[in-house]
Amino acid sequence: MATFRLALVQLAVTATKADNLVKVAKLVKEAASKGAQVIALPECFNSPYGTSYFPEYAEKIPGDSTQVLAKAAKDNGVFLIGGSIPERDGDKLFNTCTVYNPEGTMIAKHRKMHLFDIDIPGKIRFQESETLSPGNRFTTFDTPYCKIGVGICYDIRFAEMAQIYNKRGCKLIVYPGAFNMTTGPAHWELLQRGRALDNQLYVATVSPARDETASYHAWGHSSLVNPWGSVISTMEHEEGIIYDDVDPSYVDEVRAQIPIGFQKRNNIYKVEEMEETKN
Amino acid sequence: MATFRLALVQLAVTATKADNLVKVAKLVKEAASKGAQVIALPECFNSPYGTSYFPEYAEKIPGDSTQVLAKAAKDNGVFLIGGSIPERDGDKLFNTCTVYNPEGTMIAKHRKMHLFDIDIPGKIRFQESETLSPGNRFTTFDTPYCKIGVGICYDIRFAEMAQIYNKRGCKLIVYPGAFNMTTGPAHWELLQRGRALDNQLYVATVSPARDETASYHAWGHSSLVNPWGSVISTMEHEEGIIYDDVDPSYVDEVRAQIPIGFQKRNNIYKVEEMEETKN
Repeated sequence: MATFRLALVQLAVTATKADNLVKVAKLVKEAASKGAQVIALPECFNSPYGTSYFPEYAEKIPGDSTQVLAKAAKDNGVFLIGGSIPERDGDKLFNTCTVYNPEGTMIAKHRKMHLFDIDIPGKIRFQESETLSPGNRFTTFDTPYCKIGVGICYDIRFAEMAQIYNKRGCKLIVYPGAFNMTTGPAHWELLQRGRALDNQLYVATVSPARDETASYHAWGHSSLVNPWGSVISTMEHEEGIIYDDVDPSYVDEVRAQIPIGFQKRNNIYKVEEMEETKN
Repeated sequence: MATFRLALVQLAVTATKADNLVKVAKLVKEAASKGAQVIALPECFNSPYGTSYFPEYAEKIPGDSTQVLAKAAKDNGVFLIGGSIPERDGDKLFNTCTVYNPEGTMIAKHRKMHLFDIDIPGKIRFQESETLSPGNRFTTFDTPYCKIGVGICYDIRFAEMAQIYNKRGCKLIVYPGAFNMTTGPAHWELLQRGRALDNQLYVATVSPARDETASYHAWGHSSLVNPWGSVISTMEHEEGIIYDDVDPSYVDEVRAQIPIGFQKRNNIYKVEEMEETKN
């Protein structure tokens, strides 16, 4: 499996959906023009992040926002991991990532499985479950380069998801996410590095840029971590794109050096997905 | 459950077993005199670390080395997590940790479950399985402060062990370990912080001091990490003892703030220990 160029687009999301969509099309084109073959967008790229915004910005899938994604993937001939948008399905809302192949076909849809409900006194309280429903399925998809898994933001705190993506054969997990100014500095990088090291695969995160005028301040710091657990590309909190190579054969190399996959004591413990969630 | 004082003894292990045992008795006494209620020793505290040494230094349990531990626990009225020794049982050798209560009774015995077999070209090759057999059981024990889990060195790379210790109710996991000069700087701290954050509990590691004249150079850096994933005590590679407080109620506090235990999607995935390994 060949090395490929990954681009992480740390978009400055605004309150004007149309502007966000125009910007997405522009930045995907820019990333592709610089050689990116897989491009990932941040969580909640078409809407400010906040439970009060989700009902207003939510769309059906397919809808305006995902049509922009499909066209951008096709026009530029890239795999596009479309961050996330608030999705409306009947009377429910989800935080949903859609993925497109270079023909513009949607090949995966991930609804955030773990809703962000935290309460750190004096720091941050946020309850996604006030408006959102959780997804109930893991999401992985194939590319000519390697199998890729998708989680959204708070999903990264749940080691089991990454363990199962590893078992499914993923060599890269992409987490669009918008950590905040409390948990960002404390946990954002640590979680990525831990998932990468424990599963010996690449982990990418894609945050929106920080908007000091918004109600929710994203930590930024979109990053790529390699299977050795090292951050190989990262950035601060401004809008921008980072590029780096993902080498699936390096995953195999690390797994040969420290063969923890092979050495797991499968007769003593196991991590399993329930039958009904399997693709 | 009350806060307790933990001491991590980074012992300078020599090739003379008797000297190591005298030193252990002395340092346990010193740590207890400074208020430590739970004291932990490093991996392979009675022997140099290396497959060629294990057969020569191996002992039955109980034996000379564990009698020193039992007496040190009783004489000082402390819980003692006795690092590890090469254990002989019939024609097999194990890398084994024994644990004593303040009455000097052995209350737990952990045989390293994951043998350290790695091969990083040009850096380090080590194959514990050339002489050792693996243990087949998880090890947790109760104290008046909290339940504590034990793993040995390479065991820390296996996230499942810590996940199961978390499910069993542990609020502290202690890993005697001797990482090397390649994986130490790269992974020692990251693994501890990852286990602590993912399971929202304290993680302690206890290394031997580095002996530049020995065949195996230990990384040192014995540390305590709190349930927020922060290193709260650490040291360099010389002999010494670090002390810090472990507050089981802080575990509860972090788990209330970011309730990932409660939020796990147990109908979608699970981490399980097999029936026969349960205590």
